[in-house]
Amino acid sequence: MRRLKCRVAYDGTDFSGFQVQPEQVTIQGEIEAALQRITGETIQIAGSGRTDAGVHARGQVFHFDTRSGIPIEKWAFVLNNQLPDSIVILSVEEASPDFHARFDAKAKEYRYCIDNGPVANVFRHRYADHIRSPLDLEAMRQAARHLVGTHDFTSFCSAKTFVEDKVRTVYDLRVEAAGDEVWVICRGNGFLYNMVRIIVGTLVEVGQGKRQPDELLSILQGRDRELAGKTAPAKGLTMWEVFYEDE
Amino acid sequence: MRRLKCRVAYDGTDFSGFQVQPEQVTIQGEIEAALQRITGETIQIAGSGRTDAGVHARGQVFHFDTRSGIPIEKWAFVLNNQLPDSIVILSVEEASPDFHARFDAKAKEYRYCIDNGPVANVFRHRYADHIRSPLDLEAMRQAARHLVGTHDFTSFCSAKTFVEDKVRTVYDLRVEAAGDEVWVICRGNGFLYNMVRIIVGTLVEVGQGKRQPDELLSILQGRDRELAGKTAPAKGLTMWEVFYEDE
Repeated sequence: MRRLKCRVAYDGTDFSGFQVQPEQVTIQGEIEAALQRITGETIQIAGSGRTDAGVHARGQVFHFDTRSGIPIEKWAFVLNNQLPDSIVILSVEEASPDFHARFDAKAKEYRYCIDNGPVANVFRHRYADHIRSPLDLEAMRQAARHLVGTHDFTSFCSAKTFVEDKVRTVYDLRVEAAGDEVWVICRGNGFLYNMVRIIVGTLVEVGQGKRQPDELLSILQGRDRELAGKTAPAKGLTMWEVFYEDE
Repeated sequence: MRRLKCRVAYDGTDFSGFQVQPEQVTIQGEIEAALQRITGETIQIAGSGRTDAGVHARGQVFHFDTRSGIPIEKWAFVLNNQLPDSIVILSVEEASPDFHARFDAKAKEYRYCIDNGPVANVFRHRYADHIRSPLDLEAMRQAARHLVGTHDFTSFCSAKTFVEDKVRTVYDLRVEAAGDEVWVICRGNGFLYNMVRIIVGTLVEVGQGKRQPDELLSILQGRDRELAGKTAPAKGLTMWEVFYEDE
């Protein structure tokens, strides 16, 4: 038995999210089906975390165990041959038997793309949320500063969540312009359900002048999802990178 | 009655091409349905030319006639509100009653995108053809030079075509690298059916070392579709721009 660690990119548009669900087409389901065709084994993969329907990944990480003797340098090619064009395995490496893609993840980076041009870029409509009026990026940056650090993020977590501990550390939260696009880049030690999308939705309302940057303080302190802004659409979100100790 | 000239961008992935066809979802069909909802009139639009299923446009042009009094500066907004995210009207302007999007077009530019990275870029899988082995761009450029000018392009035209005159002028045919992507940029006074995709398919075979650059001369002279390379996949092709006299 060997344990393999894989990095995968996917276009989440046509999937019901990462995690296997009955009767749904999911990233995990597609990868497990490909592994079964390749190895003949019934393999369950473990991702670093779930992504919702429509959310993309540039560097999701998962691990799995197999008895297959396929050489390590062939794995990505063999897997990609069995996967749809919307899922691409970027790398496969041998991992120690106690490596765990989820429990060993030290930090994650998500990036959210807003198409802020006056007319939507049709080639980005699956990967960016179009907001036609120019956002006030300086106000968004001021607001973002309040969220960096270790806080109880209850206000930025879907009310549907049953996790007890809602304290997380945001290491970095940047707002960057690139042509007509505005990117919100968020790095933290872990994220609650919908946390990045609610942060982005709230920052957008600041950028539209609907809220003041300093409101972020009272939103955090209130620990109430109702205080924060709307959940930004899934399609603009990409799981960018997962960080592990050894890296 | 007024005549309006429109520029439109579309993601061709989910359409059966530009032109209306029974039982199919097409760009023209979507635009005409939107115009009917907006004006109450039954309007037929005339494009600068067709694009095949899966082919995209950054600057397709069409015209139509209407009795509607909607102010010119509102048209793009009103139309975009009625169109799916995969079709975006970029501009609408008043045109003279004798303007014709197809007959008045003086030149067109198409661009073809090849993802030439070792692993496919998942976010470009709808817009680029992935070829994993590095292409010899210098050989492709040498080959491309033979096609510039006025020639009988019978060898670069789908055998299904019934057009009599297969002489066209290619003003410019460039091969450019941009990161992992290779772009073939082709400007001409008009294009035969599948012409750009057959040119690209043939240049790719040169870039792979399967053909010599100078073979392009004998392919042209042979006037036989069998002599040229494969038709490159539709998804890499974008109608980039249409040029008119007044511009």
